[in-house]
Amino acid sequence: AESNMCDLLRINTDRGVMIGDGKSRFSINGKPIYHFVGTSTFSEYTVMHVGCVAKINPEAPLDKVCVLSCGISTGLGASINVAKPPKGSTVAIFGLGAVGLAAAEGARIAGASRIIGVDLNANRFEEAKKFGCTEFLNPKDHSKPVQEVLAEMTNGGVDRSVECTGNINAMIQAFECVHDGWGVAVLVGVPHKDAEFKTHPMNFLNERTLKGTFFGNFKPRTDLPNVVELYMKKELEVEKFITHTVPFSEINKAFDLMAKGEGIR
Amino acid sequence: AESNMCDLLRINTDRGVMIGDGKSRFSINGKPIYHFVGTSTFSEYTVMHVGCVAKINPEAPLDKVCVLSCGISTGLGASINVAKPPKGSTVAIFGLGAVGLAAAEGARIAGASRIIGVDLNANRFEEAKKFGCTEFLNPKDHSKPVQEVLAEMTNGGVDRSVECTGNINAMIQAFECVHDGWGVAVLVGVPHKDAEFKTHPMNFLNERTLKGTFFGNFKPRTDLPNVVELYMKKELEVEKFITHTVPFSEINKAFDLMAKGEGIR
Repeated sequence: AESNMCDLLRINTDRGVMIGDGKSRFSINGKPIYHFVGTSTFSEYTVMHVGCVAKINPEAPLDKVCVLSCGISTGLGASINVAKPPKGSTVAIFGLGAVGLAAAEGARIAGASRIIGVDLNANRFEEAKKFGCTEFLNPKDHSKPVQEVLAEMTNGGVDRSVECTGNINAMIQAFECVHDGWGVAVLVGVPHKDAEFKTHPMNFLNERTLKGTFFGNFKPRTDLPNVVELYMKKELEVEKFITHTVPFSEINKAFDLMAKGEGIR
Repeated sequence: AESNMCDLLRINTDRGVMIGDGKSRFSINGKPIYHFVGTSTFSEYTVMHVGCVAKINPEAPLDKVCVLSCGISTGLGASINVAKPPKGSTVAIFGLGAVGLAAAEGARIAGASRIIGVDLNANRFEEAKKFGCTEFLNPKDHSKPVQEVLAEMTNGGVDRSVECTGNINAMIQAFECVHDGWGVAVLVGVPHKDAEFKTHPMNFLNERTLKGTFFGNFKPRTDLPNVVELYMKKELEVEKFITHTVPFSEINKAFDLMAKGEGIR
């Protein structure tokens, strides 16, 4: 009950079959089609384990709220549920892809007053303002380490940081940029399998906290309906996250747009 | 207000003088004697900054409660204030010196039901039972890493761990032995200046938390009086921590006993 990580249905991209009988529910010309990430939601109809189904407000437009499924909820939850920035606090967001933008949005909803977007691609900064970012930092513009630049911008360190890149250096920077005494860093990005997190342990002794999150600590069945309600109450503008609408029959075009970075990444 | 780390009086063993005028208040034959750690409490009388003075229950026996000053409070607070083990949970304590024993005592007071003491010196295990340890693990007795032994003892990992050795390997083990999904590891030991904390970042993604603490997150002036009250209410038996009583004139004998490991270390 303390965790949102379900032992039974724990995400397993290799599984591809239903848990009950180890079989797929789809086939084409007699060949099985496997269940992607246990849910197979890139199809008009699907069969899934009851533990993977959440009931949401029937008024919610499915063509909008479908984007709340994975990365967006992860970013929102990383800020709202895990980093929990106090009202008026300062938050650094590492990586301004879709997850990072959602984390910025979550920090804004939680009441942070300064939200500093950190990204190597300055083209993302203008868009990120819509998601609550108030300031930007491009590591390329500085000869000093990002941690030091952020410490100077914030009188010693940010109150919270959320890392949404998966890059190990960004993870270390995100931890080392928080303020002694109360700073909390949250790792969201999925690291390379050979990555190693390294820091001087004195950073912990100075009363900093480092945590990670999976799906923003949301429990999908009980919490996703509430995320949908945030949208219904207009506290969360889901439309901002949608750059293109593509019919299901052209799904590969959507993947191409994503790969080219023409959507929010 | 969020932190117990006072910017003005932050511990500084090199300072040795009063903050107001940068001078010492003691001398012998005209030569200054400096203030150790800003308080100079190894003397019968002292002069200290008002921020370093806590008013405690006047009924409290000073020859007992004086041991609550540093390491013992640090260990107690690391468990009570930082690790916060839920009732009935399992806690691993790395290092059964005075700080670790106090951390075990704190875990017991907080309501943990299994408290596993980890130490390379099995001679400490019997004594540690008095401080709430229910089980022991000597890494020398196992060919597997301590993390794996603890995972086997606890169905996947301990709920909380508190590291009280200052050894970087123990710090890494203390983090890697906590359970995915909710585990919290607290670093208390002071690391070597060249130490490097290394772990695979996936351990964070699996929703573990790593934090450090300074003085057990207690705010000395407001919280130490409450620790003294724990003793007055007999919830904390300070006497267990006292192995020798030595008059002030023989203070060097006490240091010798400590160096020989004849007290609780």
